Amino acid sequence: MSDTDYGVSLADILAARERIAGIARRTPLKPSEALSRRLEKQVWLKMETMQDTGSFKIRGAANKILSLDEYERKRGVVTASSGNHGKSVAYLARKLGLRAVICMTDLVPEAKVAAIRSLGAEVVIHGSDQDEATERAHELAGKDGLTFIPAFDDPPVIAGQGTIGLEILDDCPEVETLVVPVSGGGLMSGVARAARAIKPDIRLIGVSTTAGAAMVESIRAGRIVGVEEKPSLADALPGPIPPDNRYTFAICRDLVDYILQVTEEQIAGAMVHALEHEKLVLEGGGAAGIALLLDRRAEAFGNTVAAICTGDNLAADKLVGLYRDVE
Amino acid sequence: MSDTDYGVSLADILAARERIAGIARRTPLKPSEALSRRLEKQVWLKMETMQDTGSFKIRGAANKILSLDEYERKRGVVTASSGNHGKSVAYLARKLGLRAVICMTDLVPEAKVAAIRSLGAEVVIHGSDQDEATERAHELAGKDGLTFIPAFDDPPVIAGQGTIGLEILDDCPEVETLVVPVSGGGLMSGVARAARAIKPDIRLIGVSTTAGAAMVESIRAGRIVGVEEKPSLADALPGPIPPDNRYTFAICRDLVDYILQVTEEQIAGAMVHALEHEKLVLEGGGAAGIALLLDRRAEAFGNTVAAICTGDNLAADKLVGLYRDVE
Repeated sequence: MSDTDYGVSLADILAARERIAGIARRTPLKPSEALSRRLEKQVWLKMETMQDTGSFKIRGAANKILSLDEYERKRGVVTASSGNHGKSVAYLARKLGLRAVICMTDLVPEAKVAAIRSLGAEVVIHGSDQDEATERAHELAGKDGLTFIPAFDDPPVIAGQGTIGLEILDDCPEVETLVVPVSGGGLMSGVARAARAIKPDIRLIGVSTTAGAAMVESIRAGRIVGVEEKPSLADALPGPIPPDNRYTFAICRDLVDYILQVTEEQIAGAMVHALEHEKLVLEGGGAAGIALLLDRRAEAFGNTVAAICTGDNLAADKLVGLYRDVE
Repeated sequence: MSDTDYGVSLADILAARERIAGIARRTPLKPSEALSRRLEKQVWLKMETMQDTGSFKIRGAANKILSLDEYERKRGVVTASSGNHGKSVAYLARKLGLRAVICMTDLVPEAKVAAIRSLGAEVVIHGSDQDEATERAHELAGKDGLTFIPAFDDPPVIAGQGTIGLEILDDCPEVETLVVPVSGGGLMSGVARAARAIKPDIRLIGVSTTAGAAMVESIRAGRIVGVEEKPSLADALPGPIPPDNRYTFAICRDLVDYILQVTEEQIAGAMVHALEHEKLVLEGGGAAGIALLLDRRAEAFGNTVAAICTGDNLAADKLVGLYRDVE
């Protein structure tokens, strides 16, 4: 397969790095004393919680929005997400002075709606599942001339997330294994394209939850399949991969060594580990990499491992509750 | 007063920045949505918890240790601290392959001793107050030819801490007020020397605890005085200023606008605010700046404020306990 077949090249990711500098942050790659000692490896954590929006999603959204032309920017942007992606789009629109419309289902808690509104975005509540909210976002895009900002299956978005791979390899060229949470695969795809291009023999390990791993099942089936989704502590991780997927499925299938699954119990344990030993507040999906590192399967990850801590979108009372349960 | 009378010049701080690059991290200056909204100001938090050791203390210690000559390095270093300074010295010694001896009182909990030992340092338990442990460290320095690494009242240490001031003004030249925790005044002195040199009219606000603020009382008295110390959530903040102080008292007296005090209750509230709204684990002293920003006195701080979040040396169970009490 040629370099361009995956939609995103190393050059695209290098260009994204230039484009998003000053908007998305170059985050610290911090050593974990606790995990390094436990695994007898050098373990690094990539601190995407230090982004202004608390998650890596700002990278892809920024690369997409900053790639729009003057006319597109004037009209504004729209997406469907109540999570880190929606928050990032709203934040960026405010920062760049664009109109932003964020569509959400009527199941979204009022606190999340208020958080997005407080960033200055218009919130449209529509339908009771993600597909309906997404459909509404596409309708508004057509009606108002807004640009739809996809959450993962889009080359500029993937290229933006891929800048994390550049930074890790820049800070730690000796890294042997990258551990990357996988939901729709945007982050994994960007990181994989960057890392495989720079260090072809690097080990790329995705991590998903047993509560719904559409990418794992799709790769197993050889085509996009739906999976039963259960509620998960890692609420950013389950979620369908639409059948018209063009990029992330192929990249994850072809370039990633394994996508491994962690249980709810392991995710809870990782969130508590993060609080106790890393002094980090991590949402479930953000702690999934640590969950895998606390599992015996991590013994095979070589001497130097980096895991991406993707986001901190977690209510403190939930974390405190988990701490009490696990301790 | 000439530039050199304070022992530390802007040039020293610029040199420190070069010296410690690659050892101490350039930490993120992250906007706080919650505090910005509440104060109707732009509020930035300087994330010193992202240092490899979890606190800013690595900067001063690194600048000091990297300033030693070959013979001094061969013999090794010694200090008296069970807290962030001791941890930083131990960490740096391991990283640079030096011998490190850390003296502590017999009151230090076993967990802290183990943490320092696990970094490869030799721990010497001596006496039951800080003066006795410090005296022992000086004896060992004489006997074994080790270099004593002071915690604050030392030009290279002050210059190292001052690099934080350079970074904040570099990232946010428009900042009007810096909020800086003050104990012995090493951090405040470095930041004040850097910030006053670059932006003479900047507002410099120190923050100490009502449970013991030797610097506040000493400035009030016009000379170094002892104060009664009570146990504090911000256990890094109370503590005596030895009467032979040469630098930090004069700098804090002459260059700092005000050192304000916060109560234990305010510190607890700030630690819980940090967990809930900033998604940060902060030790009491690390949250003191936020405590002041949550106080009405912060209204007078202008439009753009940066507070230094100094460290994360806090047991999770303590934070969870505070959360339950405050909520």
